[in-house]
Amino acid sequence: MSDPKQTKVVLDESQMPTHWYNIVADLPTPPPPHLHPGTQQPLQPDDLAPLFPPALIEQEVTTERWIEIPAEVHDIYRLWRPSPFYRAHRLEKALGTTARIYYKYEGASPVGSHKTNSAVAQAYFNKVAGRTRLTTETGAGQWGSALAFATQIFGQSCDIWQVRSSYEGKPYRHYLMETFGASVVASPSELTEAGRALREQFPDTTGSLGMAISEAVEAAAKDPNASYSLGSVLNHVALHQTVIGQEALLQLKLFGEGPADYLFACAGGGSNLAGIAFPFLRENLEGRAETTIVACEPKAAPSLTEGEYKYDFGDTAHLTPLLKMYSLGPDFVPAAVHAGGLRYHGMSPLVSHCYHEGLLQATAIKQLDAFEAGVIFSRAEGIVPASESNHAIAGAIRQARLATEAGESPVIVIGVSGSGQLDLPAYAEFLSGGMADS
Amino acid sequence: MSDPKQTKVVLDESQMPTHWYNIVADLPTPPPPHLHPGTQQPLQPDDLAPLFPPALIEQEVTTERWIEIPAEVHDIYRLWRPSPFYRAHRLEKALGTTARIYYKYEGASPVGSHKTNSAVAQAYFNKVAGRTRLTTETGAGQWGSALAFATQIFGQSCDIWQVRSSYEGKPYRHYLMETFGASVVASPSELTEAGRALREQFPDTTGSLGMAISEAVEAAAKDPNASYSLGSVLNHVALHQTVIGQEALLQLKLFGEGPADYLFACAGGGSNLAGIAFPFLRENLEGRAETTIVACEPKAAPSLTEGEYKYDFGDTAHLTPLLKMYSLGPDFVPAAVHAGGLRYHGMSPLVSHCYHEGLLQATAIKQLDAFEAGVIFSRAEGIVPASESNHAIAGAIRQARLATEAGESPVIVIGVSGSGQLDLPAYAEFLSGGMADS
Repeated sequence: MSDPKQTKVVLDESQMPTHWYNIVADLPTPPPPHLHPGTQQPLQPDDLAPLFPPALIEQEVTTERWIEIPAEVHDIYRLWRPSPFYRAHRLEKALGTTARIYYKYEGASPVGSHKTNSAVAQAYFNKVAGRTRLTTETGAGQWGSALAFATQIFGQSCDIWQVRSSYEGKPYRHYLMETFGASVVASPSELTEAGRALREQFPDTTGSLGMAISEAVEAAAKDPNASYSLGSVLNHVALHQTVIGQEALLQLKLFGEGPADYLFACAGGGSNLAGIAFPFLRENLEGRAETTIVACEPKAAPSLTEGEYKYDFGDTAHLTPLLKMYSLGPDFVPAAVHAGGLRYHGMSPLVSHCYHEGLLQATAIKQLDAFEAGVIFSRAEGIVPASESNHAIAGAIRQARLATEAGESPVIVIGVSGSGQLDLPAYAEFLSGGMADS
Repeated sequence: MSDPKQTKVVLDESQMPTHWYNIVADLPTPPPPHLHPGTQQPLQPDDLAPLFPPALIEQEVTTERWIEIPAEVHDIYRLWRPSPFYRAHRLEKALGTTARIYYKYEGASPVGSHKTNSAVAQAYFNKVAGRTRLTTETGAGQWGSALAFATQIFGQSCDIWQVRSSYEGKPYRHYLMETFGASVVASPSELTEAGRALREQFPDTTGSLGMAISEAVEAAAKDPNASYSLGSVLNHVALHQTVIGQEALLQLKLFGEGPADYLFACAGGGSNLAGIAFPFLRENLEGRAETTIVACEPKAAPSLTEGEYKYDFGDTAHLTPLLKMYSLGPDFVPAAVHAGGLRYHGMSPLVSHCYHEGLLQATAIKQLDAFEAGVIFSRAEGIVPASESNHAIAGAIRQARLATEAGESPVIVIGVSGSGQLDLPAYAEFLSGGMADS
């Protein structure tokens, strides 16, 4: 890198990854299988057939290292990939740090986050299997809008159950889903048995991801033309996100840097973390790097740092398989003061396994620390990060300050998973001093 | 271009323009000068000194062809420039058109529009002149958020008067300005004489750009440390935006195309149109192209197509110089049904002059046609355009359909000036059938 002021590395479409990377092929120990909720035996592919198309079921269990990205998916990725990778010159200056800080930015996608990387893949494989309708849940709405975009690309209909508190409090997100042509209802709804039962049991509930999953799963199971689609947690979702980390490794190299010393990424269900981190973890496993990888989760939903590692359900109504994961229990509802996404009770089984094996670290970030970091980042870099991404930025800033105190210059990479343009009311609340901590 | 599926051309920072392009140097006839409102004589540089710093006054009147972009400005441009340029493969398919459609996208800037290109330049030249405070007006908020970002980059304070209807109806934009550290009030306000007089005269007014300009100009004139800053209309603002067209010309060439046949860009005050169009117009003037350049303005504020070409004030209180421009009169207030930006009563004197000389064409787009085009574009390209940009897209789609009927394959370039993420309520209104036409 001959220009010391170089601010970003943009890649050509010809440099986009051609395959998704499957960490399972390189793990020292195999991750525990998903279990059938009735028999408690390892899940068979047929067990998932009512919910998912064959290709995604295969991706859920495969031990192949590289899965080719179909041309039809690759062509849609071209709309926003490769995503840019920045040297945070101005953030470094604002912090007065000796650390060298880089960030990978997924916010320029159609919906402003990394979620489209998996949504397009899932919609495509469902189309191949003849599924003309997808159902899903969404919290803050990043995933729902991604699937809304992806399904209309492939001519499918899309029904989305959005956690009621977000549906009502963050209307821009369902406007976005509707602009892309999807149908959105607040969950729990009257449209499903699960929803009606939850409304009877908890008349005042503001909803949760676990509840919305139950509704979307039920709707898909009852319609032979429909599949259920999940935006995080599962292995195939983590797989699709690995385009992020593959690009970031190349871009860091093109900046003239050696291996990263630290990687910070936010973790809710875990797909963003997995997407950027698993290619970096491979570098560690193959002896080419010793990158400390840190999952940054919200103190309001601290599955890794405070949850229990056990087999648990993915949803409130116990309709999903049992997943071995760090979990706060499927009835978990984050405190109402929690502004952002990252609300899920459990953590991706692959991320959980890596954490349990000591391959990843984790830290819980308080809400006010996250937004303080987001404002510093916004003013320095000109990008208002998603509230989720602020957790990673807060973790990285803390590390940069430690490095400065120690007189060290580590290479710190941040995964900035999305744009906060639709999170601006939470920024306004923070700036006014009216935001509660968590 | 060897890959027929190539979707975008991204440039390296090393390919960013190093100079702004001044169309005045190449115009067949000189544009009429601005006049002093008292003497009616051509404005002298000293007349502008209370409002603007010397460098911007010089840029307002210079006939030099190329103005070097200072390194300090260039370094900030690196945060989002060069901006991407796309072949609209999927839009072409959705329209079933024989035209080849390209678009330049400015929506990935810190505030989601082209406005930062001039805001950073203006803040910088003010800093050089020792001005520690900038005042400005904003309508929908694109300009205000751009200046909020730019001033905090250079450590200046920023006071923004936002048209009251937008301040109240589009709160996300002032949240964004506040996140970047600016102070924002609804206009007309109690903070200025002009504002108090307007509130007395029009107690129920929802405000206008003309009113907000009066307030911001008054505030700057009364504070020796402050400058006034305008987001469009003036020559130096158009100048700063020419980075857009310079990049687009190069990117079109890198796609392997010859000269463009058509260029469509939205026009409110005219800086976006000027920014992309003037470098293309130079190609026409020098005989290298015969591009038909079309300014797309809203039917609700049709200064070019229905205004009068005359010397007029830029603001309601008649505090500005007299500008020779197509104008609807400084008391103009767009109909309340108009959802987007592009609300100004006048048109950039340079754009007006080019239009009067027959170098540009203009068309007025109705609101429902604009949003229909925006939804088609969103679903095809995965980018929800700013409501302003929808006018250009509507013009281009109309041209593409004509080409298809004629069996022709023109190269059509669209200037997509910004992202519509903060315009989603207007999209929801359109999709619900509740939007009024204009």
